[in-house]
Amino acid sequence: MSTTSELYAVADFCLIPIGTGTSSVAEEIAECQRVLEKSGLKYKLHGYGTNLEGPWSQVSQTIHDCHAAVHAKGAARIATDIRIGTRIDRPDILPGEGNDHKVQRVQEILAKDKA
Amino acid sequence: MSTTSELYAVADFCLIPIGTGTSSVAEEIAECQRVLEKSGLKYKLHGYGTNLEGPWSQVSQTIHDCHAAVHAKGAARIATDIRIGTRIDRPDILPGEGNDHKVQRVQEILAKDKA
Amino acid sequence: MSTTSELYAVADFCLIPIGTGTSSVAEEIAECQRVLEKSGLKYKLHGYGTNLEGPWSQVSQTIHDCHAAVHAKGAARIATDIRIGTRIDRPDILPGEGNDHKVQRVQEILAKDKA
Amino acid sequence: MSTTSELYAVADFCLIPIGTGTSSVAEEIAECQRVLEKSGLKYKLHGYGTNLEGPWSQVSQTIHDCHAAVHAKGAARIATDIRIGTRIDRPDILPGEGNDHKVQRVQEILAKDKA
Repeated sequence: MSTTSELYAVADFCLIPIGTGTSSVAEEIAECQRVLEKSGLKYKLHGYGTNLEGPWSQVSQTIHDCHAAVHAKGAARIATDIRIGTRIDRPDILPGEGNDHKVQRVQEILAKDKA
Repeated sequence: MSTTSELYAVADFCLIPIGTGTSSVAEEIAECQRVLEKSGLKYKLHGYGTNLEGPWSQVSQTIHDCHAAVHAKGAARIATDIRIGTRIDRPDILPGEGNDHKVQRVQEILAKDKA
Repeated sequence: MSTTSELYAVADFCLIPIGTGTSSVAEEIAECQRVLEKSGLKYKLHGYGTNLEGPWSQVSQTIHDCHAAVHAKGAARIATDIRIGTRIDRPDILPGEGNDHKVQRVQEILAKDKA
Repeated sequence: MSTTSELYAVADFCLIPIGTGTSSVAEEIAECQRVLEKSGLKYKLHGYGTNLEGPWSQVSQTIHDCHAAVHAKGAARIATDIRIGTRIDRPDILPGEGNDHKVQRVQEILAKDKA
């Protein structure tokens, strides 16, 4: 496989500003949501991070731009945890449907428990 | 602070079975949801993990029990990524509301952008 | 498998104090190393976290105690990323040798490249 | 801050192949080390991941290429956990010294305990 053929990435990230002097991180996470909105990528905020997916380099660039935006708001240092997955066996999963597809599959299995 | 006083943990985890011979992980994640349901803790599945919160030792024990249940289903090896947070400045945030509170705060800030 | 039979955990964690007003985290990480030293568990600091292994509940309790100690030093909020793995297929790997064993296996494979 | 000015990233990643039919991951991690060696970036394997640092896009591209290489070896699906940090307050930390600098700072503090 050539490394020039870009993989599609289904991801999730949790960004933490360091040294801001306040224990609240909501302003910084809101700023990330603005960057995500502009990115054109599919994303969804949850209680401990944000689901995000798209071509690998766009996912990476968008998280980079979140760092840049949060630095611009005053955070001297930032630490982010990213979970990122790729697969080559399911070309049938449509772009933008990676994370939703996973939730749906689990819910289908659990629905049978109740049936 | 005494280390015997247990901290309340707001967490998120993503469990991955290894060596199962299939690229699908939905059955294993569904099994974890069953363990979570029995735990009595508040939890919520999303596209790349599950939000979970409660007293630190119960959160930890519940994730342990997910490992045990997924091993029992045949996975020889499991790797999990856990994000876990504690804070001592907001005793007003009610148990079970930690992750929801974070999402709500960000949404309040973003709502002002549109106002 | 009974969930009362405790799993052995091979782990790694990265703790981040929030709202300390300084972008340095070295004092807090040093405090964690002191907690780890007292824990009796095998651990090893690296550039972006600390390897740690032992019975699951002891690993969890030790990371909890790192949070408690860092809160005691003044951090109002802490976020930690934990990678934790269990396996039931290699009872021959000795306690305390889980992380070292993984590095060794990779180095053995790479050594053959040069041979 | 312009998002076109690229941030320097100090990172760590742990890659897990899924559905390979074996609980061993050493061959895949060895393959990643070969990719890292070719990348020209500074990296260091530890028990639960690999430290890596460089310009953000190169760090990201290198982890992408690890995925591509592990897919090429037969893994249908891969999940990776990345810890990635940036800071704008320490331009004096030399490229390639980010992770080592962190360990050194902690060791200096602990050395005073013994003094």
